[in-house]
Amino acid sequence: IVEEQLARVERMKQDPGPVDYETMDKIIIGCCGGDGIGPAITAEAERVLKAVLKDEVESGKIEFRTIEGLTIENRIAVNKAIPDDVLEELKACDIILKGPTTTPSKGDGPNIESANVAMRRELDLFANVRPVSVPELGIDWTFYRENTEGEYVLGSRGIHIDEDVAFDFRVITTQGVKRIARAAFEFARKNGKKRVAIITKANILKKTDGKFLELCYEVAREYPEIEADDWFVDIISANLINEKVRSGFEVFVLPNLYGDIITDEAAQIQGGVGTAGSANVGNRYAMFEAIHGSAPRMVETGRAQYANPASMIKAAELLLRHIGYKDKADCVIRALNIANETVKLTGRSDGATGAEFADCVINNL
Amino acid sequence: IVEEQLARVERMKQDPGPVDYETMDKIIIGCCGGDGIGPAITAEAERVLKAVLKDEVESGKIEFRTIEGLTIENRIAVNKAIPDDVLEELKACDIILKGPTTTPSKGDGPNIESANVAMRRELDLFANVRPVSVPELGIDWTFYRENTEGEYVLGSRGIHIDEDVAFDFRVITTQGVKRIARAAFEFARKNGKKRVAIITKANILKKTDGKFLELCYEVAREYPEIEADDWFVDIISANLINEKVRSGFEVFVLPNLYGDIITDEAAQIQGGVGTAGSANVGNRYAMFEAIHGSAPRMVETGRAQYANPASMIKAAELLLRHIGYKDKADCVIRALNIANETVKLTGRSDGATGAEFADCVINNL
Ligand SMILES: CC(C)[C@H](C(=O)O)[C@@H](O)C(=O)O
Ligand SMILES: CC(C)[C@H](C(=O)O)[C@@H](O)C(=O)O
Repeated sequence: IVEEQLARVERMKQDPGPVDYETMDKIIIGCCGGDGIGPAITAEAERVLKAVLKDEVESGKIEFRTIEGLTIENRIAVNKAIPDDVLEELKACDIILKGPTTTPSKGDGPNIESANVAMRRELDLFANVRPVSVPELGIDWTFYRENTEGEYVLGSRGIHIDEDVAFDFRVITTQGVKRIARAAFEFARKNGKKRVAIITKANILKKTDGKFLELCYEVAREYPEIEADDWFVDIISANLINEKVRSGFEVFVLPNLYGDIITDEAAQIQGGVGTAGSANVGNRYAMFEAIHGSAPRMVETGRAQYANPASMIKAAELLLRHIGYKDKADCVIRALNIANETVKLTGRSDGATGAEFADCVINNL
Repeated sequence: IVEEQLARVERMKQDPGPVDYETMDKIIIGCCGGDGIGPAITAEAERVLKAVLKDEVESGKIEFRTIEGLTIENRIAVNKAIPDDVLEELKACDIILKGPTTTPSKGDGPNIESANVAMRRELDLFANVRPVSVPELGIDWTFYRENTEGEYVLGSRGIHIDEDVAFDFRVITTQGVKRIARAAFEFARKNGKKRVAIITKANILKKTDGKFLELCYEVAREYPEIEADDWFVDIISANLINEKVRSGFEVFVLPNLYGDIITDEAAQIQGGVGTAGSANVGNRYAMFEAIHGSAPRMVETGRAQYANPASMIKAAELLLRHIGYKDKADCVIRALNIANETVKLTGRSDGATGAEFADCVINNL
């Protein structure tokens, strides 16, 4: 386990840095539907993307590919979080648009790692960027969740010492902290943000969170125009819903598991986990997804076509912004806001279908 | 580290179970002011307690003691989370009423463990019970936070593998889970609650949270009249502020760090961390405290006497309930509600003092 972490640090040290989409001949976008309502809502987001990128597809700058095999059935069949051939297909793309995937839990099948977590690791998608905005409450937050370390590196590989005592591990590395901190501060600088809040529980987890905190402040010194301060994760979960202080926050940088918890709370303030998209960004690859699950019950009851694709369309918007099409991203957001206001989705046959919703977005692009 | 955990398991196996306050000749309550605004607000809560327990003090059933030495200055001087003589005094009591304590952070002094965490461990206060109630929103929650395991057992003793890689540990034991789960389900049974929600991140932390989840369900089978279900901690942080689902929750049982985060969020819904008390309960000892910090800035600016003692009076109420004085506890809550409605505390000289607030509580007992 230790060897593996040292090897990971070596790889991070040798990382050549981010690719430049502008100078790339072709950007390949792989669309990967996932499980449950995933294929339905991903298909709608893909339609929106193709509509807005029509010229680029024609000119050959953008190519779309469909990646079929990341289903729960396939994963169980080969007993792997991501089947080998799927991983190869993913790695042949530059950008992934991914629907939610189901993680088999103990009861119903083999104990396979989350496909999500495996993809973040295999493609080294170290920054999980989650914007949450509620203009009427003065909220405009961007979360930089570290996406490859903490409890998630070794998650399933803790130790049962004996029948009574179990250990799990948490890993934080210098290189891992520095790259997420730089990503957060760079974002702040480029977007005129004035403040980055560093979130830890460094009073308890003195080695790992202590390291995270110290290195974030070290990186902060490279950005003297931005104010950096730090908060414990418990009080931040209170502050996000404290009207007196929350609108003062702008950018957050935080370890993996705290990011997982705090961004779900933040998404709920925006209207629910169904309203939020998430960018998983590395230097070579980037993956865009919804933050909610695959809603198997909707599929079982034959309601997949009524699933709301808004979160995947948000993911598509983040994708456009990431590869440099800022105007197209703004255009998608405007159209999405119109659809949110005019199309009534109930998740049942008395409401619109996901396709009708996406049609409305496309007509308003 | 492993040996220590095995020894802890042995001690838990030999634990004789809870003391019975009714049959005790005398119950000794130690009042320990702590740091910052702690001494001021603890003194007010102590006055309320003494007023409501007047007869019991006279008859000798209850004795109050003052424990002076748990100050940040003393802790730094002896470089210990709890000075030895203070620990001895604490152990000579049965019940502790404790004000907030300051944990020195890296910058300003030696790297001492939190006095809070040390006390929970030394007195084996395994259940952190935090009630949150907002009747007008239909919220009546009780959190059973495991208080001695998880990230907190070994918190400060992770490992720096080399200058780049840090590890921290997380420990969950069979005995540790069973006793907190039993406490939660017993509470549910005794209070006519119908549902206990088990909170983990068992999809990632498969060994430790997997064990927690499995054993909670095992204990749940002893309480067939109570419905048990389980949730991931991320979605729970969203659900607590989701008006559609939150009033359906009653009792929560959760590992240490998730309890830390989620209960701060819950307290904010109730009006802020300043409105919540917390019971730290073991079989031999129990300690009652506010869930907020020591507010050193109020002391520095000479405003300690304006600090709001409501959270410590809530802690006193939980204390009374714990040792069997349910009617007196109800009486304190009623008086506290009157004080909250009639006394205006601003934290500054244009508002009431903490003593005036406590006077109002005492006059309405
Ligand atoms: C599906 C799960 C493993 C994942 C996580 O814990 O990161 C999800 O909750 C998320 O936030 O993307
Ligand atoms: C002071 C701190 C160590 C403590 C904790 O993390 O448990 C506090 O936040 C609490 O919730 O009682």
